[in-house]
Amino acid sequence: MIEDVTLDDLPLREDLRGRSPYGAPQLDVPVRLNTNENPYPPPRELVDDVAGAVREAAARLHRYPDRDAIELRKGLAAYLSASTGVSLSERNVWAANGSNEILQQILQAFGGPGRTALGFEPSYSMHPIIAAGTRTEWAPAPRRADFTLDTPRAAEIVAERRPDVVFVTSPNNPTGGSIPLAELELVLRAAPGIVVVDEAYAEFSSQPSATRLLGDHPAKLIVSRTMSKAFAFAGGRLGYLAAAPAVVDALQLVRLPYHLSLLTQAAASAALRHADATLATVAKLAAERDRVAEGLLGLGFTPVPSDANFILFGTFGDTRASWQSYLDNGVLVRDVGVEGHLRVTIGTPEENDAFLVASKEIPR
Amino acid sequence: MIEDVTLDDLPLREDLRGRSPYGAPQLDVPVRLNTNENPYPPPRELVDDVAGAVREAAARLHRYPDRDAIELRKGLAAYLSASTGVSLSERNVWAANGSNEILQQILQAFGGPGRTALGFEPSYSMHPIIAAGTRTEWAPAPRRADFTLDTPRAAEIVAERRPDVVFVTSPNNPTGGSIPLAELELVLRAAPGIVVVDEAYAEFSSQPSATRLLGDHPAKLIVSRTMSKAFAFAGGRLGYLAAAPAVVDALQLVRLPYHLSLLTQAAASAALRHADATLATVAKLAAERDRVAEGLLGLGFTPVPSDANFILFGTFGDTRASWQSYLDNGVLVRDVGVEGHLRVTIGTPEENDAFLVASKEIPR
Repeated sequence: MIEDVTLDDLPLREDLRGRSPYGAPQLDVPVRLNTNENPYPPPRELVDDVAGAVREAAARLHRYPDRDAIELRKGLAAYLSASTGVSLSERNVWAANGSNEILQQILQAFGGPGRTALGFEPSYSMHPIIAAGTRTEWAPAPRRADFTLDTPRAAEIVAERRPDVVFVTSPNNPTGGSIPLAELELVLRAAPGIVVVDEAYAEFSSQPSATRLLGDHPAKLIVSRTMSKAFAFAGGRLGYLAAAPAVVDALQLVRLPYHLSLLTQAAASAALRHADATLATVAKLAAERDRVAEGLLGLGFTPVPSDANFILFGTFGDTRASWQSYLDNGVLVRDVGVEGHLRVTIGTPEENDAFLVASKEIPR
Repeated sequence: MIEDVTLDDLPLREDLRGRSPYGAPQLDVPVRLNTNENPYPPPRELVDDVAGAVREAAARLHRYPDRDAIELRKGLAAYLSASTGVSLSERNVWAANGSNEILQQILQAFGGPGRTALGFEPSYSMHPIIAAGTRTEWAPAPRRADFTLDTPRAAEIVAERRPDVVFVTSPNNPTGGSIPLAELELVLRAAPGIVVVDEAYAEFSSQPSATRLLGDHPAKLIVSRTMSKAFAFAGGRLGYLAAAPAVVDALQLVRLPYHLSLLTQAAASAALRHADATLATVAKLAAERDRVAEGLLGLGFTPVPSDANFILFGTFGDTRASWQSYLDNGVLVRDVGVEGHLRVTIGTPEENDAFLVASKEIPR
């Protein structure tokens, strides 16, 4: 092996020195409830169809994929149109390797050096990380003490600070609450630039999708989505967005050519054909979420009301010790950096039972 | 569909205004010799193995992939060790969605605002584009009139300008020439920062790999590679690099988490197991390259000596008209922006014959 040198010997950018790679621990634990995955494996028909689509595509692996991923975008547009009631075509949809790449492309086009992105914290921790990666200044703004978003106040902050990009996560990760469209409208009206509504967990929510606001705000609104959560496709890495066609044109100026592989395009298209079967787990998970929340209440915890497939709950005196105690009891939950709280993903009924049993043992 | 707005209505970064998306035309033409793909479809056994690996992986699609892609990196390290004679482990190797993403991560870690990347033009046109995408200043330096690299002069330029990152492409795209290790050494000694040797076409070259220089320059040298060309895996989008483990650590600070899908990791690992069969096409393509070069000479063209799977040739008075004339004759070649020249990818013998026949008809 090549003789090693250390990070200190490399001409690394100064702002990266001392940082650690992002990512939850990938530990081999019986009950993994830490990354908001869907606990139900893809149905047999989906696996068959993905495998068949990939086998067919694999014969063309020596050729570059469709750079514009038209067929996949048609499938995503059809799914979004049917599920949100807003008529969208492939020209309204863009796709990338996970919603992280979608968000990175948005900040490359509309953020970057000399520009600012604002988010309401605590929220998805990748937003400030991707801002840093694209050298976009990050402006954190607060939520209420109960983690809900005070939208009139949020609109004021946006009007005052005039960020180039605003992130609104609905349902919010890691706190779980959704924002009604009328309240989103306040933020949209106040924003001078782009508003990204991050709907990674939208399928779990009872609120309508922000895609309904695209007609009124085509030059401002981008709705980002992922197949990682409700779609049970975290391993396939497929994020997407809905926006005006001009936004899609803008992202094509910054995307790496051929960013989406032939296999990703084929597999995601196949998975979309099984949307009904996959999304059948959503109602089950929502019911389990409500059961787990009640269980936590019964044990004297304080679960934050959630519209997603996870619950933030507390309170703990020593969050790190409580996280470790869950792990010692065979349950991996997430310390998301919110003081006194941990986040648990809703799993299968058996996993949730294991979590609730473990919860009795946890020091607070 | 959502009412459209135009790019002018969007708060796009000023430096992106008026730009067009990168990418060769994806046209449906009988003979496509424009993107340096391997013309031979993957062997049946490889397709079977990729399909089998993906089917097995697809049952776990609801879970995030291994964020560090350890098994794939082991496979890539074993392949590189065997083919270059340099002992490398997975700690020396990093992988991403195409070498474009590899290069983007390198510039995010070692380039960026306030830093400079230098390349010797004409070369791979994505280098300056990825520099722009990461807000790294681009410093173009010249080659000789015959497109070879004057390495003593290149070393002087590097010593004078002190760029943070230097790109050396060997074999160079679109001109085809390789650089001997002793000459690369001159550039490495002169460079104050990182030197990326882009070996996308290395398998076609008779020169040894720059991985042999990693032992002497662990804090400077990064060798980037791709499975798109010799490996006939352009559709799979798998780029990788060899470097000191600390370089891999640095890139993990800027990579998007879970950037490589479960399917990409499984499919690329399966394809690597068939390296011998796939790379059997390399010798065929190299022999065809020499035949095409002779054919072009016989027709009075000037082919630039190539160590890769393409040939830059001229000279044309009106390059655009000559490109169109090839297209009218059913052959898609590439106008790479080098005055008086076009680039042709080496195809199957039948495709190359069609190209040579068409060449007789082309206005110069």
